[in-house]
Amino acid sequence: MGAHWSEPVARLLRVGEDFDLPRVDRSATPGWDHGKKKAEKFMAKRGKELSELQERLYADGRSGGNRSVLLVLQGLDTAGKGGIVRHVLGMVDPQGVALASFGVPTAEEAAHDHLWRIRRELPPPGRIGVFDRSHYEQVLVVRVNGLEPPEVNDSRYAELVDFDLELAATGTTVIKVALMVSYDEQFERLAERLDRPDKYWKYSPGDIDTRLDWDDFQAAYAEMLTRTSVPQAPWYVVPADHKWYARLAVTELVIEALRSLDLGWPPADFDVETEKRRLAATH
Amino acid sequence: MGAHWSEPVARLLRVGEDFDLPRVDRSATPGWDHGKKKAEKFMAKRGKELSELQERLYADGRSGGNRSVLLVLQGLDTAGKGGIVRHVLGMVDPQGVALASFGVPTAEEAAHDHLWRIRRELPPPGRIGVFDRSHYEQVLVVRVNGLEPPEVNDSRYAELVDFDLELAATGTTVIKVALMVSYDEQFERLAERLDRPDKYWKYSPGDIDTRLDWDDFQAAYAEMLTRTSVPQAPWYVVPADHKWYARLAVTELVIEALRSLDLGWPPADFDVETEKRRLAATH
Repeated sequence: MGAHWSEPVARLLRVGEDFDLPRVDRSATPGWDHGKKKAEKFMAKRGKELSELQERLYADGRSGGNRSVLLVLQGLDTAGKGGIVRHVLGMVDPQGVALASFGVPTAEEAAHDHLWRIRRELPPPGRIGVFDRSHYEQVLVVRVNGLEPPEVNDSRYAELVDFDLELAATGTTVIKVALMVSYDEQFERLAERLDRPDKYWKYSPGDIDTRLDWDDFQAAYAEMLTRTSVPQAPWYVVPADHKWYARLAVTELVIEALRSLDLGWPPADFDVETEKRRLAATH
Repeated sequence: MGAHWSEPVARLLRVGEDFDLPRVDRSATPGWDHGKKKAEKFMAKRGKELSELQERLYADGRSGGNRSVLLVLQGLDTAGKGGIVRHVLGMVDPQGVALASFGVPTAEEAAHDHLWRIRRELPPPGRIGVFDRSHYEQVLVVRVNGLEPPEVNDSRYAELVDFDLELAATGTTVIKVALMVSYDEQFERLAERLDRPDKYWKYSPGDIDTRLDWDDFQAAYAEMLTRTSVPQAPWYVVPADHKWYARLAVTELVIEALRSLDLGWPPADFDVETEKRRLAATH
């Protein structure tokens, strides 16, 4: 059998009514009591499962199905969003994944409603979409930096939930993940980027500016998490001081989402015996 | 040391002046004399090298560099184009890869010049672009099915070369790969898709129609390969009856292309000592 989850991780990490961000231990590994080495072995096994489920989703999409998955990744600088893409989504066929990352809006993007650029990047049927940052920045960086009037910003929470509900209603399984690192761990990760010349390109002086607003960002996350986690599109808070844990947990969340779709292989949309005869005639 | 290539594979597979498609043995494994098992072990090692080089390309793109790579994949149905994407590009960070596949043009695409949809999918700086089918279908399926007048079609060869030269001149390393399976191997692969319900979705009755035009397609490939292989954007003909060989060979071609860019890590575009002090002040 080998090591496995002690409890369903989706249940452990899901943001419910009694959620309290300050109580989240960012170096904890909820549901996993076997340490890093066994986690890495388990990860390889789960990668195969993820890969098989992803292929079924892709086949479904190619055969007229409307289902897709959208993994929304939020987290402060160094929280490990890129590592999730690389190490979790990197385990499946790149053809089945649709990535998008959202930075400071371009002039064209800024000229539109904030959901405009988001809609353009939604995963087509059959794909696992991944957003590295997302529409939720509207209540994170936009809020903390005061980029729109408070009363407008306050109306965003309901708007974001409505958007997710629309996605869920039209066949997209939405998984929202907040990767939460501790203040100390962020220090270590930024220090590494400044110590290693092969990491300079990942560093930006703006990372420190954001770090100086740590408390404001934590408050914005707390408010976002409690106000926009709904059963059809829940938030999962993933402690991210241990990268191996965060990757293992997100893998499991995506597997559970795919499994809940209960996808079989699409039936043939042609007559199999006829095609066998046609093929045999070419032998 | 372990098994390795007996000769540089790029040289062995490159289409030069004396190229003769009928002489290509599609079950051969040029440059690799160690069989499948050792190939798979070697592949894992090469994946690490590919991944490191890809990260340098990505870092370069993020830091203002203009270099990119474009891997053009052509091959008849079942030749293994999807397998290359999955198993070769699947070894690197999905964030560094820009995939596009080109099927029958949509109404919108058909209303434009045939290169219009191609230009839209070119890799941005820092990425490895992969085309699953490409602009070269203009001298393959369009030619074989007589979808444009012969004299127009004949003008495409020069146009395609000009397009590739333009890419090469603006920072894109173009690697064109023709995956060539034998008639017998294609039979086996189509038969498998008709035998296994989990493969039905990969089958289309049109695959047999194309197979019935086998000789015409071989002639179109032969003409394309000799007329559009230029030093700045060469064609490589990869025998593809052994999937493991094709994947190993394409891995090597991409590695060689990336290595020829001679990319270091981008220097810091900020003052490292200043930033270290700013970070330390947040401890």
